[in-house]
Amino acid sequence: MSTRIVVIGGGAAGIGAAGAARAADRDATVRVFTEYEDVGYSPCGIPYVHGREIDSFDRLFLATKEQYDEAGIDIRYQTRVTGIDLDNHRVSVDDGSTEPFDRLVIATGFNYEQPGVPGGDLEGLYYVKNIRQAMEWDRILDQAKSVVVVDATPLGMEMITALAHRGLDVHLVDPNPWLLADVADPDIMQPVEESLTEMGVKMHLRTELQAFLGDGKVRAVQTSDGEIPADVVVVCTHKKPNTALAADAGLKIGSTGGIICNSHMETSAKAVYAAGDSVELPHEVTGVPIVAITGSHAYSQGKVAGTNAGGGNRQYQPVYVPWGMVAGAKMIGGASVGETLASALGLPYVMGVAEGISRARYYPGVEKLKVKLLFDPKDHTLIGAQMVGAEGIKERADFLGMMIKKKATVQDIASMENVYSPPIGALAEPIASAANDCLARLEG
Amino acid sequence: MSTRIVVIGGGAAGIGAAGAARAADRDATVRVFTEYEDVGYSPCGIPYVHGREIDSFDRLFLATKEQYDEAGIDIRYQTRVTGIDLDNHRVSVDDGSTEPFDRLVIATGFNYEQPGVPGGDLEGLYYVKNIRQAMEWDRILDQAKSVVVVDATPLGMEMITALAHRGLDVHLVDPNPWLLADVADPDIMQPVEESLTEMGVKMHLRTELQAFLGDGKVRAVQTSDGEIPADVVVVCTHKKPNTALAADAGLKIGSTGGIICNSHMETSAKAVYAAGDSVELPHEVTGVPIVAITGSHAYSQGKVAGTNAGGGNRQYQPVYVPWGMVAGAKMIGGASVGETLASALGLPYVMGVAEGISRARYYPGVEKLKVKLLFDPKDHTLIGAQMVGAEGIKERADFLGMMIKKKATVQDIASMENVYSPPIGALAEPIASAANDCLARLEG
Repeated sequence: MSTRIVVIGGGAAGIGAAGAARAADRDATVRVFTEYEDVGYSPCGIPYVHGREIDSFDRLFLATKEQYDEAGIDIRYQTRVTGIDLDNHRVSVDDGSTEPFDRLVIATGFNYEQPGVPGGDLEGLYYVKNIRQAMEWDRILDQAKSVVVVDATPLGMEMITALAHRGLDVHLVDPNPWLLADVADPDIMQPVEESLTEMGVKMHLRTELQAFLGDGKVRAVQTSDGEIPADVVVVCTHKKPNTALAADAGLKIGSTGGIICNSHMETSAKAVYAAGDSVELPHEVTGVPIVAITGSHAYSQGKVAGTNAGGGNRQYQPVYVPWGMVAGAKMIGGASVGETLASALGLPYVMGVAEGISRARYYPGVEKLKVKLLFDPKDHTLIGAQMVGAEGIKERADFLGMMIKKKATVQDIASMENVYSPPIGALAEPIASAANDCLARLEG
Repeated sequence: MSTRIVVIGGGAAGIGAAGAARAADRDATVRVFTEYEDVGYSPCGIPYVHGREIDSFDRLFLATKEQYDEAGIDIRYQTRVTGIDLDNHRVSVDDGSTEPFDRLVIATGFNYEQPGVPGGDLEGLYYVKNIRQAMEWDRILDQAKSVVVVDATPLGMEMITALAHRGLDVHLVDPNPWLLADVADPDIMQPVEESLTEMGVKMHLRTELQAFLGDGKVRAVQTSDGEIPADVVVVCTHKKPNTALAADAGLKIGSTGGIICNSHMETSAKAVYAAGDSVELPHEVTGVPIVAITGSHAYSQGKVAGTNAGGGNRQYQPVYVPWGMVAGAKMIGGASVGETLASALGLPYVMGVAEGISRARYYPGVEKLKVKLLFDPKDHTLIGAQMVGAEGIKERADFLGMMIKKKATVQDIASMENVYSPPIGALAEPIASAANDCLARLEG
């Protein structure tokens, strides 16, 4: 009999796992359970449709249901798994049936943290996640004038940018002194704040959310900065791993609330794997466990989990977390830790900073690019980086993530060769300039 | 008495050396000799002014003559050095005087290879180099209709792109079967050739230049593909190191015709340094000496030579030569060797190829990006890369150059983390996809 592989969840991790399991074992029965109507679309694209940068939600679909059938992946739509029975190797499903498995992949994703203020049950609170709901919310946004976005998380940054681009009156409420404070340094976010303000976004930083106000439907939010009218509130709170099923089944859960896995993405139970936003993994530089990194991480973890569930042998690599995004008219990004997080963790570092340019100074489209690099004060290896600019951030963040992994030193980076061609690169690469700044501090 | 440092040449290497020498020794007398009227401008920008992407040659100037005075660098304009007397530590100058030195930096740059066909002394043959001449040629181009560009070198690619952009009738003559054949692989150049053809450039590949035709002034070029009318011919032949002075002085010259230096950029004579396009350096992967790499390399070498001339102690790092440029509507680039050069050198390799995308598939501005990676078949470390796309090439080329230097393996790159954010990066990084393709070949 063929191996029965069950996947719970139809997001990037679940679909990645299903495909990889089929690739590893052509004879396996691969069955995916999802509570939603669709799989195989890009949820990360939703803010950009709301922002009218992409003309239709249809464009976010990557594959049709027929394509999954043809690939031999059996997807059970709108079917919720209600329990995992580890002893008997089966899951129970909301239609009352059970489904046996030889190998299980848990890819149950995340839930948004509850804001924990009165009025959370009002209509008009939008949690961005599911594409069909996004289509409905887009029609609601057509009628909206004033929108409050709660929390300057990565999604919050994308949503305020998108909604400002759409022409709405956008307010951001966040308790921290600067944007994206969990991830980025204040000096990196300063130009972003200026850019968003220029786009008309009203910033309410250092501001506590106190209540959603309204009668049945939200009409305003109450904050420590006063009442802000709102036709819609987009709640972009932190992502919490969705581990109810895993915890109920007795799988080990870590300090962040994520499922604990080994490097094979195997949980504390044999033949049970997990991947994606429901999993916690130690950050290689800090050792601190982290959850809900990015869709790319979820997909990669899903592929490792699925390959191993299919009888293969793959290890997921340590994470250094390159990141990047568009925020306002700026791009920001980095890898591993910034100054703020390093300080908070008590991680010693020496720093180099440079403000360079993305093309020749005289070439149209040239943009400023600020680079901060953090090095280990003992062996001078790179341990973190942050950047703000307007182009070339994603590629540099990937580069810096790998430089941390490959233990590049400040000398390595200071003396790096770089492409110089006026339309695409300046004489001095800003990353090298930042390393040279650090060398000068070390020598001076 | 202060140390007397003489620099011959006012290009990127010479100016880099002068500045670094001053920084290393605040008391030194630093004197630069240049045969031209100007220093401190970007010759690499000249094609883009001809192409009308930059509105004026004035924009290419980086620093004024006063700024060099203030920086304590004494520049002798329009003054040609005619000889180097190593025994007496002095150079002779074309006004009949001599100039003593304690340390010398030779940064005499390159000359274009002579085409070696009849008619080389006709008017209307443009060798792109000096900015004042470029200003004159720009006025001549205003009167021109048909322009022939000789040789698909990097400069040749820039010039055909620029002149087509300017709206001229452009013909390219090159003896090789594909564009930029010394550097890039045919499959990388195929989309570039298509793009240039679409822009109206007439390609004469596999075509020998036989003569420049005309009476006093060029009116056509004679080729193995017939006669091509030309109001101007832009001669973009290979760059040859300009080492007449160095060779006359008895300095060691290498097989490429470039000055031989150690890692301190010191020549075969003590206290005599060299930097830039007049120098040959071994390519770290192939061991083959190379000359006239890029302006960025010249500037970096100049800084090392100048620092050491000023009493410092810096080493120039081995070169892996990341490169990149705009050609037609495409961008191309890479690092170290491609398939063609590896084969020609008998360098064994295993390859991975992928065609990916630069942003999310549905995000406006998304562009295809083809990546080819070459790995050592024994230890699976990266030895070379080539790419063609339309954005994000320069940053990836820098990245791949450093990955070669840091001995990244196919496994390292296949499992690299990448930024996924729809406006700036796709779920799968094309570089990782190419490494995964190689892994599949190795396993399959």
